[in-house]
Amino acid sequence: MTGHRLIAVDWGTSNFRAFLVDRKTGECLDSRRSEAGLRALSADEFPHYCAAQLRDWRDGGRVPVYLAGMVGSARGWCEAPQLETPAGLEDLAGQLVPAPGLDQAWIVPGLKTLGDDHLDVMRGEEIQAFGALALQGTTRAVCCLPGTHSKWARLARGRLVGFTTMMTGELYHAVRYHTLVGEPSRGREGIDEGGFRQGLAAARHPAGLLHALFEARSRHLHGGLGAESVAGFLSGVLIGSEVLARLGRDEDEVILVGSPSLNTLYRLALEAHEVPVIEVDSDRATLAGIVALAERHETGRKP
Amino acid sequence: MTGHRLIAVDWGTSNFRAFLVDRKTGECLDSRRSEAGLRALSADEFPHYCAAQLRDWRDGGRVPVYLAGMVGSARGWCEAPQLETPAGLEDLAGQLVPAPGLDQAWIVPGLKTLGDDHLDVMRGEEIQAFGALALQGTTRAVCCLPGTHSKWARLARGRLVGFTTMMTGELYHAVRYHTLVGEPSRGREGIDEGGFRQGLAAARHPAGLLHALFEARSRHLHGGLGAESVAGFLSGVLIGSEVLARLGRDEDEVILVGSPSLNTLYRLALEAHEVPVIEVDSDRATLAGIVALAERHETGRKP
Repeated sequence: MTGHRLIAVDWGTSNFRAFLVDRKTGECLDSRRSEAGLRALSADEFPHYCAAQLRDWRDGGRVPVYLAGMVGSARGWCEAPQLETPAGLEDLAGQLVPAPGLDQAWIVPGLKTLGDDHLDVMRGEEIQAFGALALQGTTRAVCCLPGTHSKWARLARGRLVGFTTMMTGELYHAVRYHTLVGEPSRGREGIDEGGFRQGLAAARHPAGLLHALFEARSRHLHGGLGAESVAGFLSGVLIGSEVLARLGRDEDEVILVGSPSLNTLYRLALEAHEVPVIEVDSDRATLAGIVALAERHETGRKP
Repeated sequence: MTGHRLIAVDWGTSNFRAFLVDRKTGECLDSRRSEAGLRALSADEFPHYCAAQLRDWRDGGRVPVYLAGMVGSARGWCEAPQLETPAGLEDLAGQLVPAPGLDQAWIVPGLKTLGDDHLDVMRGEEIQAFGALALQGTTRAVCCLPGTHSKWARLARGRLVGFTTMMTGELYHAVRYHTLVGEPSRGREGIDEGGFRQGLAAARHPAGLLHALFEARSRHLHGGLGAESVAGFLSGVLIGSEVLARLGRDEDEVILVGSPSLNTLYRLALEAHEVPVIEVDSDRATLAGIVALAERHETGRKP
């Protein structure tokens, strides 16, 4: 049985997420989450924390572990390279870095783009993009991976050809919690759909994002935008601006690879431009990506 | 002598600034600044604080005081109306609100725009825009008033016809102090011109502002952008984006009405688009605006 299992870990700045996976079926047999992200741990705590979290899944170390995300950055457990695009799963599999202090555990490289006018970096989303491709049974797609730093990735012939980061999620938090404009939204939970749709429309203002965000204030004062709708409005302006800036490419459809709640918001934003959308849960994409990676990894290691 | 003097106060969220002015020459005879902005005072402290600050200039109450800025908002000393654009100095002079508890002291109204797709508000910048017009001896201009919430105002026939707020300054602080992208810039002073110019160029990235801000991180990791240049880069991206979003109107030139340091940055951004610029110090604009307002006010009160 052990030979059919692997452990996929997505370890980021704020979260640790681990999945025990049946690699034959792709099924998630068990999962574990915590807020022990990179920020919460010192450099020497990674192997101990990881071993303790995964011990009862590992069958004495025989079940392999693949770790993706910021865990491979300079501030993480051990730095893994960032490969230049275009790159495929084979390239990632060929440059896995053994995790120091833990047997049969590998850290997955990230990707980078180093153009004259466009420098960009990712860690973790590449696995999700490849996983989404596998789940859809295709080799070509435009994927949007929404989050703190949203990634828009183009894939062709099964390789990740190029990508662009949009700092939408991080800006949303900065505006909501650290500006006058976001003040009425504090202490309230959730995204109000009416506010969100108003924000989507405001994102099309000819004066752009820097003005549209301020309308959260002027509409709250004079336009009937209630305090309960300000967070939704800001989210709509930012996600609407992100989508506007990424459209006009020649995509037939966009594969959304995020949490169900983020996917829903991005679906609304894309459908406002009549762009067809496929939704993939980002956890499922991580599992599928790691399973496909492990296959390449083991094929590569057999004589 | 007293009849030739007035006191102009610009009282905002974070600062109190007062000027004793010779209204014949427009000269500033004395000035006083503090950080006792709206945030620092409770509602009943305004008259006492103001009286104490200005006592030795007032000649027993005979020198009049005009107060502009957020002091006239609901959170200020006493709410003054916001007049709809288009509006001129006569309109402001006709709706001055006596400051409760202080003789011969008036709070200046703000302005608002209530369009279907554009709601906007200002308090304080209207006086500076009218002042800049008076200083330039013209009745028609496009003014950019950079700051926490930058205002772009169109003036024609001496009236303020329309305006747009861009939340550039507030976003700069939120990104610099409350995101991962801004992290390398903390604890460092000043704007590095090399970084600023790189940011101006990055603002033209086809993926727009949400991506260009993230380049502060990818260039810091892989593009040789030193920690000492990150603040300048972020400022360049934001001011560059603001200017890009406001160009393409038919202005012959832009009158910049800000602090000398902000004017310098905006001049660089505008000159990159070959837009001629006139710089006016915002304090001088406040004085000139209040002197022109007081003239209308007294003319209106004479039989």
